[in-house]
Amino acid sequence: MQHDERYMRLAFEIAKTGLGQTSPNPAVGAVVVKNGEIVGFGAHLKAGEPHAEVHAIRMAGDKAKGATVYVTLEPCSHFGKTPPCADLLVETGVQRVVIATTDPNPLVAGKGIEKLKQAGIDVTVGVLKEEADDLNRVFFHYITTKTPFVTMKFAASLDGKIATKTGESKWITSEEARQDVHRYRARHDAILVGVDTVIADDPSLTVRLPEGGKNPIRLILDTHLRTPLEANVVQDGAAETWIVVGSEVSRERIALYARPHVRIVSMPTPTIDIRELLNMLAGHKITSVFVEGGAKVHDSFIRAGAVQEIIAYFAPKIIGGSEAKTPVEGIGFAHMTDVLELTIKRVETIGRDIKIIAAPKR
Amino acid sequence: MQHDERYMRLAFEIAKTGLGQTSPNPAVGAVVVKNGEIVGFGAHLKAGEPHAEVHAIRMAGDKAKGATVYVTLEPCSHFGKTPPCADLLVETGVQRVVIATTDPNPLVAGKGIEKLKQAGIDVTVGVLKEEADDLNRVFFHYITTKTPFVTMKFAASLDGKIATKTGESKWITSEEARQDVHRYRARHDAILVGVDTVIADDPSLTVRLPEGGKNPIRLILDTHLRTPLEANVVQDGAAETWIVVGSEVSRERIALYARPHVRIVSMPTPTIDIRELLNMLAGHKITSVFVEGGAKVHDSFIRAGAVQEIIAYFAPKIIGGSEAKTPVEGIGFAHMTDVLELTIKRVETIGRDIKIIAAPKR
Repeated sequence: MQHDERYMRLAFEIAKTGLGQTSPNPAVGAVVVKNGEIVGFGAHLKAGEPHAEVHAIRMAGDKAKGATVYVTLEPCSHFGKTPPCADLLVETGVQRVVIATTDPNPLVAGKGIEKLKQAGIDVTVGVLKEEADDLNRVFFHYITTKTPFVTMKFAASLDGKIATKTGESKWITSEEARQDVHRYRARHDAILVGVDTVIADDPSLTVRLPEGGKNPIRLILDTHLRTPLEANVVQDGAAETWIVVGSEVSRERIALYARPHVRIVSMPTPTIDIRELLNMLAGHKITSVFVEGGAKVHDSFIRAGAVQEIIAYFAPKIIGGSEAKTPVEGIGFAHMTDVLELTIKRVETIGRDIKIIAAPKR
Repeated sequence: MQHDERYMRLAFEIAKTGLGQTSPNPAVGAVVVKNGEIVGFGAHLKAGEPHAEVHAIRMAGDKAKGATVYVTLEPCSHFGKTPPCADLLVETGVQRVVIATTDPNPLVAGKGIEKLKQAGIDVTVGVLKEEADDLNRVFFHYITTKTPFVTMKFAASLDGKIATKTGESKWITSEEARQDVHRYRARHDAILVGVDTVIADDPSLTVRLPEGGKNPIRLILDTHLRTPLEANVVQDGAAETWIVVGSEVSRERIALYARPHVRIVSMPTPTIDIRELLNMLAGHKITSVFVEGGAKVHDSFIRAGAVQEIIAYFAPKIIGGSEAKTPVEGIGFAHMTDVLELTIKRVETIGRDIKIIAAPKR
């Protein structure tokens, strides 16, 4: 029904208010409608706080009885940090529940829907399912693969250079594009760079937005622990820094980095295996990682098949030079038949730059 | 007036029928309107054949008297291969002439307008001037700078690679993008590549379109005359091939290439100076050059400030690899303050690829 889509779209808009701040939970929105009037709505805003349905039912008060509830994700059926939303909907006496998509979380996975149906509630599933799966792609990936969702970002000139041959990269893209990057940072659980980037640019890897925003964990891939002790990520205390090292780094060397906000994570192998790393991060409930270079790190992630989304900014500039760095270097693919095929999800202009969002083909 | 723009827009559409086939003349369209009715229109289709105004006035016949003529470029005032159009308009007794932009050709440059005004014709200049200047950019550049308009084209993966590290480049972009390239070829007077591209890919550099299309001259930049005698551009006779060499190539070596459609052009210096090359080409009435690589040739043109437009195709692929070639290599720019700044003119999708049209900032 057309009005189902309309209310579900509203539920999506509401869900988006929580995007990037609900980890490890998904962003969810709910709208309560009775006799063609919106009587309540809500979103899940933070893990541990009430789910979308709870806020929406509370807002609706007595009017929730006999109403229709639109929710972007299947209501939960298990006791987590909050009681099951399916039970709440049953107790409230709602007449109909419209769900965009089922929850792949094995603790839910259709059990929420089952509970509603058994209570005699009219349930519709799959309204705007595609949008819902896209909205929840980070959470769904995390819950189904038990690894974080990885977004790779780079900013290049039109001729594919991320710096001049002398290493200058400030600034290739416009202020607007750089602020967009900070928004992505704020929405991720962790930012990841290679130690060469730390040595070359000494980045802060913090979120600097006029509206503020939480700082994600800073992950440094640093097999031999070469991160300078005076680097911003070690010294500034602005956010947690995890330096990921190989198994051959000595305890004495690690001890040098002892700081309240710095953690040295030793991998079990002499070199860092990307798959192993992602398993480890998932174990720490890191659901999303924003990979910001450099070129060799990007190559490692690409070749490991560990990238779910690519954000590419192209600046209207030609840098040129055979020695200028490009977004993905390292080993790469030798043959056209082996290259990573992508699907373009969106192309837009941002400031004077072009932004392309792409995802590997399934 | 709003209807002026409407008729001028129609004149543009008509002018475009001649795009790429009128060299060294510009593409021009004309529309004749009387009492709100279109009574004639025409375009310049080929150098030496009638101008747009002539076709349009002929079509209008007796109705041209007292009519308004919309023309995308100032009518000519000089005897070339055809008599002056300004005279024709005066003799016909048109009442008003609306002109999009003046002709920078020193043989015309306002004299056409002057002639019309002196005959008592009501003249309006500047309707959709920007579009007209854009439509005529190749011709205007050629006539004002006395060098060909240079368009640089490349096709890269999203990470800015034009081949894998083993040199494979078939095919990075889709069939649709490649056909688009053939359309650009057909619209240029010459296609230019470096000898390394000839050695690596042995391209035909011809126009292969379902609808046909003229083959431009094939220009090979080849300082030391290394083009293989068995290369397609030497052997196939499908189009003229000019091999541009430095002054130190021997006559004996040059003699080996004697073929009816092959011409060796010796530059006066041991290496090829891009500016010198363009002057030479303009002398041969080549108004436009389509530069198709390789990376070093692109760098030479970019650093010489000799590129007027860039067509970049980005395929949804990641190739990676520090040894994979990028669109512009060679020497490049060392500092961010020196890089070539561009303006994005258009972004579109073509097949599964993204096409970006950009031009150097003035």
